Amino acid sequence: MTATIVDGKEIAAAILGEVEKSVAGAVSAGGRRPHLAIVVADDPAALSYTKSLQKKGENVGVEVTVEKAAAARGPGIAVLSALADDPAVDAVILQRPFIDRSVDGELSDLISPTKDVDGQSSASLGALWAGRPCFPASTAAAAVLILEHYDVQIEGAEAVVVGRSTVVGKPAAALLLNRHATVTICHTRTKELAGVCKRADIVIAAAGRAGLVTGDMVKPGAAVIDCGYNFLDDGTVVGDAVFDEVAEVAALTNKAVGGVGPITTAILLKHVAGAAVPTEVESF
Amino acid sequence: MTATIVDGKEIAAAILGEVEKSVAGAVSAGGRRPHLAIVVADDPAALSYTKSLQKKGENVGVEVTVEKAAAARGPGIAVLSALADDPAVDAVILQRPFIDRSVDGELSDLISPTKDVDGQSSASLGALWAGRPCFPASTAAAAVLILEHYDVQIEGAEAVVVGRSTVVGKPAAALLLNRHATVTICHTRTKELAGVCKRADIVIAAAGRAGLVTGDMVKPGAAVIDCGYNFLDDGTVVGDAVFDEVAEVAALTNKAVGGVGPITTAILLKHVAGAAVPTEVESF
Repeated sequence: MTATIVDGKEIAAAILGEVEKSVAGAVSAGGRRPHLAIVVADDPAALSYTKSLQKKGENVGVEVTVEKAAAARGPGIAVLSALADDPAVDAVILQRPFIDRSVDGELSDLISPTKDVDGQSSASLGALWAGRPCFPASTAAAAVLILEHYDVQIEGAEAVVVGRSTVVGKPAAALLLNRHATVTICHTRTKELAGVCKRADIVIAAAGRAGLVTGDMVKPGAAVIDCGYNFLDDGTVVGDAVFDEVAEVAALTNKAVGGVGPITTAILLKHVAGAAVPTEVESF
Repeated sequence: MTATIVDGKEIAAAILGEVEKSVAGAVSAGGRRPHLAIVVADDPAALSYTKSLQKKGENVGVEVTVEKAAAARGPGIAVLSALADDPAVDAVILQRPFIDRSVDGELSDLISPTKDVDGQSSASLGALWAGRPCFPASTAAAAVLILEHYDVQIEGAEAVVVGRSTVVGKPAAALLLNRHATVTICHTRTKELAGVCKRADIVIAAAGRAGLVTGDMVKPGAAVIDCGYNFLDDGTVVGDAVFDEVAEVAALTNKAVGGVGPITTAILLKHVAGAAVPTEVESF
């Protein structure tokens, strides 16, 4: 095995330590705790995720409340509009899938930019592409933070993003472009995906398809950040890349578990703390 | 010369004919004329451009008014906010450069999405990337419309966009991605630009640098859409591609004059007519 393996837990712990310190400082200076509201449909998986986020938030002093909403357009609009107007709420997430892709998009656009800590609205995504102040989607930010943490050269690099979701692929492409990589976005209709990946100094695997990126698709010495988190039939979690193969070729890569995920959560909570102090919103 | 040369005037005339017909239909049904407001600083070049747009608008029944504003942040905010709230105004453009890049971005974000006919706000750019309803930037839309007009296969094609402005490069990349091309975005820090361009079935030249794309950078049979409009010292206008060279290699290309420009204006006026009938806003 040639690759350095990303220690997601360590990186996340460092970020969470900073968040805890900054929140404690703000509270001891008389401020209130940052407050994240998560809007969820009454779905077991979504509720389990939000519970875990709630606990992680508590650990660093961030208040996380859950707004269970009927998964329908009208109630969704009502809940999100109320949260946009509520001065006691610093940050809002719409837990997807809420209804379906098109309605989720419309509802996401009701999150005001200053509270949009997971970059879900069109305004946030556009601000990211335009290089204007915003919170980028946490998973995309985690992937790029990993590259920076391990001193991977982004400027001038050929970066290939596999997957074009608004949650990972597209914001990751924007973040890499803003850092002056030459960025290619691939997807299911890309011809010769292997050849395109093989040109890359940086691969962001974010297609949501288990084992899509194999070792022979990776240029020796490349950095392969695997944002995939796919459940196999037996319950095993695997990434979008074949870890054992890629780790033999790449200079840097990560496992599906303990890689991007913990950093994503840490960045999200960092954004919440930032949203409570609006002057901290910056360009990414 | 092997390439088909884009007839921008003919394509533009067809679009303008449709706009004229739809506006006339709406007016004869009792509606008022679509109304575009252009906000300009007191700059001779900008004023000359808006004058020309005003004339072209008149020709198809679109009312174009010019709001001369002091090029400062405060007055800019006041003018744009008033236009956002004015029900008699269907469409708004902030003529750039207004102040400088960062302030222009902030001011652009005051254009409401339904009036943002040149896709200048973060919300429009993000909606374009997310595949949500919006008006894309007219020049980017013109480049992609040319490809469609000449039946260039976009789905599955390798498209290379040279330049990453919010006005052309980035929205063009989004439009091509939404049409299932594999899209690479290049810029001044791209290493081996020639090699990257040479892989492309479609090149969108939008760097704002005269003669950047030479014939040897083009794959035989590719479509090269040149969005550049650069003034040489002697007043001659040239594109970002070397036309004579590229026309020998490409299957389709355009001259700087009479290519993308007339279509851009026609699409902009089509967007204005669409903004006056909000149900016509669609996803691009």
